[in-house]
Amino acid sequence: MTFRQQHLLGIEPLHPTEITTILDLADSYAEQNRRRVQHKNVLAGLTQINMFFENSTRTQASFELAGKRLGADVMNMGMQASSIKKGETLIDTALTLNAMHPDLLVVRHPHSGAVDLLAQKVNCAVLNAGDGKHEHPTQALLDALTIRRAKGRLHRLSIAICGDIAHSRVARSNIMLLGKMENRVRLIGPPTLMPSGIGEFGVEVFEDMREGLRDVDVVMMLRLQKERMDGGFIPSEREYFHRYGLDAEKLGYAKSDAIVMHPGPMNRGVEIDGNIADDINRSVIQEQVEMGVAVRMAAMDLLAQNLRAKPKEVMV
Amino acid sequence: MTFRQQHLLGIEPLHPTEITTILDLADSYAEQNRRRVQHKNVLAGLTQINMFFENSTRTQASFELAGKRLGADVMNMGMQASSIKKGETLIDTALTLNAMHPDLLVVRHPHSGAVDLLAQKVNCAVLNAGDGKHEHPTQALLDALTIRRAKGRLHRLSIAICGDIAHSRVARSNIMLLGKMENRVRLIGPPTLMPSGIGEFGVEVFEDMREGLRDVDVVMMLRLQKERMDGGFIPSEREYFHRYGLDAEKLGYAKSDAIVMHPGPMNRGVEIDGNIADDINRSVIQEQVEMGVAVRMAAMDLLAQNLRAKPKEVMV
Amino acid sequence: MTFRQQHLLGIEPLHPTEITTILDLADSYAEQNRRRVQHKNVLAGLTQINMFFENSTRTQASFELAGKRLGADVMNMGMQASSIKKGETLIDTALTLNAMHPDLLVVRHPHSGAVDLLAQKVNCAVLNAGDGKHEHPTQALLDALTIRRAKGRLHRLSIAICGDIAHSRVARSNIMLLGKMENRVRLIGPPTLMPSGIGEFGVEVFEDMREGLRDVDVVMMLRLQKERMDGGFIPSEREYFHRYGLDAEKLGYAKSDAIVMHPGPMNRGVEIDGNIADDINRSVIQEQVEMGVAVRMAAMDLLAQNLRAKPKEVMV
Repeated sequence: MTFRQQHLLGIEPLHPTEITTILDLADSYAEQNRRRVQHKNVLAGLTQINMFFENSTRTQASFELAGKRLGADVMNMGMQASSIKKGETLIDTALTLNAMHPDLLVVRHPHSGAVDLLAQKVNCAVLNAGDGKHEHPTQALLDALTIRRAKGRLHRLSIAICGDIAHSRVARSNIMLLGKMENRVRLIGPPTLMPSGIGEFGVEVFEDMREGLRDVDVVMMLRLQKERMDGGFIPSEREYFHRYGLDAEKLGYAKSDAIVMHPGPMNRGVEIDGNIADDINRSVIQEQVEMGVAVRMAAMDLLAQNLRAKPKEVMV
Repeated sequence: MTFRQQHLLGIEPLHPTEITTILDLADSYAEQNRRRVQHKNVLAGLTQINMFFENSTRTQASFELAGKRLGADVMNMGMQASSIKKGETLIDTALTLNAMHPDLLVVRHPHSGAVDLLAQKVNCAVLNAGDGKHEHPTQALLDALTIRRAKGRLHRLSIAICGDIAHSRVARSNIMLLGKMENRVRLIGPPTLMPSGIGEFGVEVFEDMREGLRDVDVVMMLRLQKERMDGGFIPSEREYFHRYGLDAEKLGYAKSDAIVMHPGPMNRGVEIDGNIADDINRSVIQEQVEMGVAVRMAAMDLLAQNLRAKPKEVMV
Repeated sequence: MTFRQQHLLGIEPLHPTEITTILDLADSYAEQNRRRVQHKNVLAGLTQINMFFENSTRTQASFELAGKRLGADVMNMGMQASSIKKGETLIDTALTLNAMHPDLLVVRHPHSGAVDLLAQKVNCAVLNAGDGKHEHPTQALLDALTIRRAKGRLHRLSIAICGDIAHSRVARSNIMLLGKMENRVRLIGPPTLMPSGIGEFGVEVFEDMREGLRDVDVVMMLRLQKERMDGGFIPSEREYFHRYGLDAEKLGYAKSDAIVMHPGPMNRGVEIDGNIADDINRSVIQEQVEMGVAVRMAAMDLLAQNLRAKPKEVMV
């Protein structure tokens, strides 16, 4: 068994063999999903709670489906409408939920580090579904699985991540994962959307889209958070599309078999041309969603195995 | 096997024998529900997603219960709070969900035709839970089952549909179903709430309630959408009740054993007198709700059988 | 079989042996929850509907988990967003749900008596999850179980309930339960938050916190509803904490092994000092949450047994 984690808080703590373990298992779940095979209930009798402090219909749906397909009892907590509003602290909320003896806790939170903090307070497996600008590990894993299936390998690839890098936990987790697996990562975007000190991650930074895309195997677009526009980070949607929106002309600089990715939901005509997004010869955007369910099934399966291997704990 | 549909998008494409197939199966589910029998999990291993772009607590609850009773993994998507708000198109949302490999997709949408469009983009069974002014097939089916159980047959009956016909998908689906099964349908309502070109459906139109109700077997009231009042369609609740609200006096014109129906939720004192609604000798309004669950169980069971009979599809 | 109720509407109708029956069963469920044992699906094939007309994330979650762990099909109705808004009456809503043949109906409602009224209209088991200022029976039962586990018994204890007694269904249900089990109950709070005619319950009333806490075994704090402040009931949070907030100094008047309870969610620094709440030698607040799931499992199990023992009913 090469997956030793008790939580999935980020890509950072994962060993490359652990990443491979998740992806291999996810691959087999993906095939079962395609064939509409009824899965073994490996999570039967376990309770999965989804705590989303930020709205995310598609990520929450993906985790919910993943858990239900494996037989877990799944409960969604609408945290916006919850006790949090009554002035309860995050820690009190965590302790309250912990007292209900969940086995898997899936958490999205607007603050970086909040999920790690919460994991220290509970005695179940915690999965980070995105925390602030920090990490979004299942997104990076589903991207990795999509790349591996499309390219036949997950190393020695040249991968461009384009757009609002500075504010993106998707970018951050992807940079770490792709680096661990020995790929070359390029970041493309306006200087105002590029994080400082990014050099230490061993990436190359480009301001010019065409230059950055030259000969890459994978083009990974990021969603433009429209609220950045008012902040003076970028001038306008039209101008942004002109300089950084992926269209056929810019994509022409990449390898002829380069694949196009986007974590969704897309702003068509802002960061990506609709025709590129729909081009089934280049775009793997729907497959990313598909792999999302499979990766989350694999992650929860592995964490549940480790949870069950622990001595039965008695709550204080 | 006399049910050949891959989707349930409307009453229009159904053959009368298909309608009878659904009603017969629903009838047996209704009896099982009454006896609190634990159902066979005919939907075990299947994923049902409810996408309601319009709020409808009771219809969504009915579909949810129907799926859960048959063992499906059921997921509700709160589409109001979803990615749609982030500017994603309906098609992108459909493709995203499709990539998660649902088997049954239950969709309500404010625009006529949106559910048909969506069905063309996905490779699972789609059930229309109401689209704009177009169709609401499970409502017509549950009404038909209720009538058949009360009257012992579903043909050669005289049925009056009363109220806001023009804006009602319930009326539209019922007119088609009742026509296919060879009943005589009368429409009663003010001219401002009557659709143009309604003659082609082979119905009789009445402006006077007493005249229209004369000797009918079934009185089907529609919910008055209060927003119509501001639009100049009707003068006031009080005036509407006076002319078109069903009370004992007006009901006296129908056959002495005529049944009273309403799709709910009711505006008591607007389109129907509360005493009539509660009269268990005449009103079958609660039984309509009961048959709703049974009809949805039957429809999903039949669609799932057809889905499973198809060759396993491989997603692009 | 010593539990004869068809509903759990309040503590008032329960015989002490029925209370003990629930607590004994809950105790065994609590142990199974701690050991992460997969429960027997004693509610398999049954439908549980949660109707919360008032928001309560934690209580609803507790009921939902309890039902799912025992194999029920659980459905949450968002009653705020529901047909109620379309002008439907509570009774119509109840009849509609009843027609869907639920087995267990869990109801929270802002009006005292609404849940009792609803129970008369349906033919399934109804559990009161809190109605106005009337009762909150599962809260009192979980408090009782927590006390019994901490103190080794549930009689001849001296228990202080502190805070906004007048508006609290938690206090009301607890006063009745603890009285039935032959404990001495003290109520502590400002006169503006003390109900009139409270003497008839056989309790002692104190305005001074230190006097009231003297030598008690259990200190049960209530949540301060902040909206009371505007109403002139209490001067300010700061002043309230000074006089009635539980801190180490005031707790010093209780027995040295007195336990501290709070139904949550807490206002730290208003009715309770955060350090006391977190002191694992005194506070059993997390255990209350834990016992909540166990008590609800026990209550639904017992009600389902009684439901199944009844002759199969045929709906009218």
